[in-house]
Amino acid sequence: MMETCSLIRMEDKIKTFSKFGDTGKGGITRFSLSPEALAARAEFKKRMEALGAAVVTDDMANMYATIPGAEDLPAIMTGSHLDSVKQGGNYDGVLGVLTAMEAAETIVKDQIYHRHPITVVVWTNEEGARFEPAMMSSGVLCGKFDKAAMLASEAKDIPGYTFGEALEASGYKGNEANRMSPEKNCALVELHIEQGPVLYNEGYDIGVVEGVCGMINYEFTFTGQADHAGTTPMKYRKDALYAAVKTIQYLHDELDKLDSKLVYTTGKISAHPNIHTIIPDEVKFTLDARHQDPEVIKQVLDIIQRIPPEVEKCKASYEEAWARKSVVYTPRLVDFVEKSAQEYGYLYKRMYSGPGHDAQYMIDVIPTTMIFVPSVDGHSHCELEYTPVENCLKGANVLLKTLLYIDRE
Amino acid sequence: MMETCSLIRMEDKIKTFSKFGDTGKGGITRFSLSPEALAARAEFKKRMEALGAAVVTDDMANMYATIPGAEDLPAIMTGSHLDSVKQGGNYDGVLGVLTAMEAAETIVKDQIYHRHPITVVVWTNEEGARFEPAMMSSGVLCGKFDKAAMLASEAKDIPGYTFGEALEASGYKGNEANRMSPEKNCALVELHIEQGPVLYNEGYDIGVVEGVCGMINYEFTFTGQADHAGTTPMKYRKDALYAAVKTIQYLHDELDKLDSKLVYTTGKISAHPNIHTIIPDEVKFTLDARHQDPEVIKQVLDIIQRIPPEVEKCKASYEEAWARKSVVYTPRLVDFVEKSAQEYGYLYKRMYSGPGHDAQYMIDVIPTTMIFVPSVDGHSHCELEYTPVENCLKGANVLLKTLLYIDRE
Repeated sequence: MMETCSLIRMEDKIKTFSKFGDTGKGGITRFSLSPEALAARAEFKKRMEALGAAVVTDDMANMYATIPGAEDLPAIMTGSHLDSVKQGGNYDGVLGVLTAMEAAETIVKDQIYHRHPITVVVWTNEEGARFEPAMMSSGVLCGKFDKAAMLASEAKDIPGYTFGEALEASGYKGNEANRMSPEKNCALVELHIEQGPVLYNEGYDIGVVEGVCGMINYEFTFTGQADHAGTTPMKYRKDALYAAVKTIQYLHDELDKLDSKLVYTTGKISAHPNIHTIIPDEVKFTLDARHQDPEVIKQVLDIIQRIPPEVEKCKASYEEAWARKSVVYTPRLVDFVEKSAQEYGYLYKRMYSGPGHDAQYMIDVIPTTMIFVPSVDGHSHCELEYTPVENCLKGANVLLKTLLYIDRE
Repeated sequence: MMETCSLIRMEDKIKTFSKFGDTGKGGITRFSLSPEALAARAEFKKRMEALGAAVVTDDMANMYATIPGAEDLPAIMTGSHLDSVKQGGNYDGVLGVLTAMEAAETIVKDQIYHRHPITVVVWTNEEGARFEPAMMSSGVLCGKFDKAAMLASEAKDIPGYTFGEALEASGYKGNEANRMSPEKNCALVELHIEQGPVLYNEGYDIGVVEGVCGMINYEFTFTGQADHAGTTPMKYRKDALYAAVKTIQYLHDELDKLDSKLVYTTGKISAHPNIHTIIPDEVKFTLDARHQDPEVIKQVLDIIQRIPPEVEKCKASYEEAWARKSVVYTPRLVDFVEKSAQEYGYLYKRMYSGPGHDAQYMIDVIPTTMIFVPSVDGHSHCELEYTPVENCLKGANVLLKTLLYIDRE
């Protein structure tokens, strides 16, 4: 008989955790280390201890709740984060913790034999909604971020109030020796909502995540001349907005010729002086482009580099704001996820993640993969974020089965 | 012998008035009824009284300095405004007052015979830089604005502080009976800098202003869907910025087919939520279009109305923010300006004004026209605003001659 998590318990977990930071409008605001987040942590600790787990925290307040295995082996980790953006939803991050808790609870209650300890992990400050940057604590553990700089990160709402102070006050700051490590941990599986419409629109239950798309983010600047709208004949104008419009159209025309999995976004635009009777003398916009294949990202760069230095008599320039290399998850773990989905008869799609997750840092340290469940209408980072509990359960089952495959290899 | 104003006196006037509100960087900040503007008014009053003028003010603090004529006839008016925008220049408005003062001084000192009284006028709050709207007092006199509403206009920098209070405190509030009127005044001539590059670029000394361009101002709104830049395939997107880009390009393509004297500007744009990793769900931009011929403005409207209700899967809508009908100045006065320029041998161009001026309201009440002098490089409403004194003198001469033509008709 196939191991199966409990729909009733899954539903109870989602409902319970939705109360911590409830906005009253279908979502939550639960900034990392806020009173609401600490209440969620306390609930997590209480429930995991009730299952017989030992709960410890490390120096970044990451929580590790470990149920013992039959043998003295490194632990298999699974989990995600409990914090949210402002007016976020009840699924981003937290569902990865709740399905991990449910898988652990199923293992304990159904007395499923497992050789490795199972550690349910909660990463601190994934969203970076109050203290930047995002994925702060996984980044510190994996050497992406300098810890001292992170401790000095200031709250967006209170100047001078630092992440370090919030950490000290939280009661969850533990010992650096408790950090995850390749010696203590042999694998990590993170379940997450897709945060996009693909699985939902195409009718899939599960996303088998092969990696994280590489991305580039560029800022373009066009410099023209500010003149009076009523006195400057068209032929004398240097209209920076028109130069930007021409360039956005060029980018669409050229980027649309590349692989159809490429996504690109011009999300931010500003004009100066931004007055209806003045020709804009400076316009900036951003381009975000993502694809799993570094070769396609290179083609995007080629297209950017073909923008001439002068567009519509305006000076055109651009600079890379930031970039992220493609991440490829551990193939054998990816295959376990696929095999698990197949065994339950779930419809699944192999895919790359567009957004970043803690797991993408962890892959540098230990074997790692991810599982996606659909987001209804693709909504995320908003109160409309939703995944039906039946589909959450399918995710928990695939997670459970994947943990057991890892345990038995 | 031809009547001629004085270069030395013209230069002295410009230098003197440039001190009132001097920014120290080549320009002035002289908001209407500010201490700096009151100092300029005091200088105006002192100088005009020294010429033998009687100076009175009306209930909107408009100043009228009248030198008597040989006969009992309505006065010929000339003048402009003394207030500026923030960090404005030494020519916009004030040059119309200074050339009027210089013309009057030449008439008095050279004992030029004239039948009509000559009134040099200073309009209050043309710029609307501190108390909106622009052209406030001429608008009240001509019935465009409700006086009570204007008195209640709040300062942009001090909430609750009204134009009415500034007026009471100024010491320049006079009697409503002193307002200009068709009974007391037979004509108005306003000299102004062009505020655009045409005269300067094409080498003209004088603009013979035939009227003011009609204009329309529209705001366009595109409504799409805010989705994550990394998770939303291109085919599912409703990108409001791309819809706006397509529409701006459409407007350029179509409007460029109309008369070459049409000027149009997309000066203001905003995107929501304006985050580089989110597809914009709402983008707004403005279109300002101006032409002297109402038929061309109608063609612009036709082009706007052909925008479909859906552009790139986004809802497209637009509304008129405001509009101004074309103004045609009094043809016989326009001809006097042209004849005057011809007599001095100045290079002139018949043209329409793009920006608005007090004179465009006055035309509804009395015969009115305007004279333009070149703006070097078209700069205006900034500290770079400049017209060489030699060209200011040419303007003063044409103004003087035009007043004498009116006097002698």
